[in-house]
Amino acid sequence: MQGIGQSGLLIVAALTAPAGLAEEWLALPDIPPVPADNPQTNAKIELGKQLFFDPRFSSTGTVSCNSCHNLMAGGEDSRTTSMGVHGLAGPRNAPTVWNSAFHSVQFWDGRAGSLEEQAKGPVIAQVEMGMRSLDEAIARVRQIPGYVEQFRNVFGGENAVTVDNAAKAVAAFERTLVTPGSAYDRFAKGDESALNAQQQRGLKRFNELGCTGCHRPPAFSGPWLAGGFFVTFPFHDSPHVTQYKLRDDSGREAVTKDPADRHKYRVPTLRNVALGAPYFHNGAVPTLSEAVQVMAASQLGIKLNEADTADIVAFLGALTGPFPAMSLPRLPATPGVSIVPAN
Amino acid sequence: MQGIGQSGLLIVAALTAPAGLAEEWLALPDIPPVPADNPQTNAKIELGKQLFFDPRFSSTGTVSCNSCHNLMAGGEDSRTTSMGVHGLAGPRNAPTVWNSAFHSVQFWDGRAGSLEEQAKGPVIAQVEMGMRSLDEAIARVRQIPGYVEQFRNVFGGENAVTVDNAAKAVAAFERTLVTPGSAYDRFAKGDESALNAQQQRGLKRFNELGCTGCHRPPAFSGPWLAGGFFVTFPFHDSPHVTQYKLRDDSGREAVTKDPADRHKYRVPTLRNVALGAPYFHNGAVPTLSEAVQVMAASQLGIKLNEADTADIVAFLGALTGPFPAMSLPRLPATPGVSIVPAN
Repeated sequence: MQGIGQSGLLIVAALTAPAGLAEEWLALPDIPPVPADNPQTNAKIELGKQLFFDPRFSSTGTVSCNSCHNLMAGGEDSRTTSMGVHGLAGPRNAPTVWNSAFHSVQFWDGRAGSLEEQAKGPVIAQVEMGMRSLDEAIARVRQIPGYVEQFRNVFGGENAVTVDNAAKAVAAFERTLVTPGSAYDRFAKGDESALNAQQQRGLKRFNELGCTGCHRPPAFSGPWLAGGFFVTFPFHDSPHVTQYKLRDDSGREAVTKDPADRHKYRVPTLRNVALGAPYFHNGAVPTLSEAVQVMAASQLGIKLNEADTADIVAFLGALTGPFPAMSLPRLPATPGVSIVPAN
Repeated sequence: MQGIGQSGLLIVAALTAPAGLAEEWLALPDIPPVPADNPQTNAKIELGKQLFFDPRFSSTGTVSCNSCHNLMAGGEDSRTTSMGVHGLAGPRNAPTVWNSAFHSVQFWDGRAGSLEEQAKGPVIAQVEMGMRSLDEAIARVRQIPGYVEQFRNVFGGENAVTVDNAAKAVAAFERTLVTPGSAYDRFAKGDESALNAQQQRGLKRFNELGCTGCHRPPAFSGPWLAGGFFVTFPFHDSPHVTQYKLRDDSGREAVTKDPADRHKYRVPTLRNVALGAPYFHNGAVPTLSEAVQVMAASQLGIKLNEADTADIVAFLGALTGPFPAMSLPRLPATPGVSIVPAN
């Protein structure tokens, strides 16, 4: 499907790059990549959903995946950095879980190579869910008959309730958390009316400035690379660096211990970025408008004027939603007793 | 509708008390009492639901009504006492929000005369949602265009976003949080097979012992009295009093300053009590089985044997659910900015 937008950009939904565009303006697929060893099934997705929303696998019984990755909102928590058990806050802003399945690596520093691996991290982070070990967490799952039954049905065998299987179920659920069908996607599929004139100008500037060099359609994240796609942030000096403490975090270097990885981060998706304030790895930048200017200064070495900034912000708004209708899960019970330890 | 249960109890769904029973064994109505000044409408209920699930009206942006009154579970948080912002915990166990609309007064000490009044409390409790004032909370609501539009549609007028209207919307939503149709309700309506033999024995013992004196069908809470129905707990001395620190809390006296109200509490509903562990105002009693024994000792002055205890626990389990299917709400956005203050 092809069409000429009002802006004169050639819009295609095919895999070929249109003339005059550095990137392929693809619509988001309905289904993200699925690993061969964790195929999607309805029962597994339903189990993963319950685990995602269940706060009982945090030390205090108060923090679930959804606490910091709120699916009723932009898939994150509107906070500078997330707050876990006992009111503790870590150093990083919660990335959105929406469309995380289109990232080849997880976490800001890409330290997890899959959603399955990622799912295990927050459970034992002492400033997040605060469990002493994954064994302690899975021991709680084993105390809940409704989970034991579902794990057996989904994974088979008497010892189906394992950390790896729990992670697989959560990851399978997360692979359903995708938002194709945004205004941008409809535009990319040929509906010129899906983006207004300002959004189309924003798309064009986004492309001309080179934003697509890292934020590539269709997910507007980095390209899918097995080892991850990392970029130094901030690259150029600017007053923002000091103002927002952008170099206080060593980024991927903390994972690899390689100085070449200092201040390197995975390129995050811009899908639903309008719902993701505040911005960047440390959540220090309060507005999307300011975030766009910070990116122009720090990555492109330019000062973006207000009109261009507004146009790009308008375009980024076209990457919001739509969000799939979802039922509230029922969490399986332990009648007559709580598995959350007493205060 | 009438029928003779296997236990020989006469079961009726009518308002007349059957012969031989101290109480009317009524099924739960589908609709709880609704105040004349806050009629139920779908739009109001939908608005109240969003407010109920929205954590942005807590100081840290991490605590919503649902955090401590989890609708995916028993309408509470499985904790001894609830944990609010900054990991702070108050002195009381979270009562279930399920069927709270059948209570004539709210909170353990009955200090709120309606759900509308109750809804305002936790927002400004410093160990719960931690806002400095209701004005501060409603100022946040006013920053969210999707809420402003809904308040105008539901309540009318340009100044529709008020604390009272927010409380009305939340209360209207809470009046939908009812669980008629439990095994007990089906039994009360004449389906003898709805309770097994043990549950029927438990019902009989529950009645014979006098539990229904306070926990009256159909909600198994106190009777509906405008000023509330309060009972001293614990009434009798027993080793439990010290073991579980049952008299450390002065109860309703703290509200009325009347020594006659010392250790008095509203009689809570037993609907879904099996999902409400741990138990009592301070959450000190870990299991339902132990809670039943504590009640027998402290309120009836008797030591309940294990068989009776097990039978009553089985009967109480028949007061669980069913829970209405519910969609996950979408919380209206503030694109490009967060209304939660920076860390």
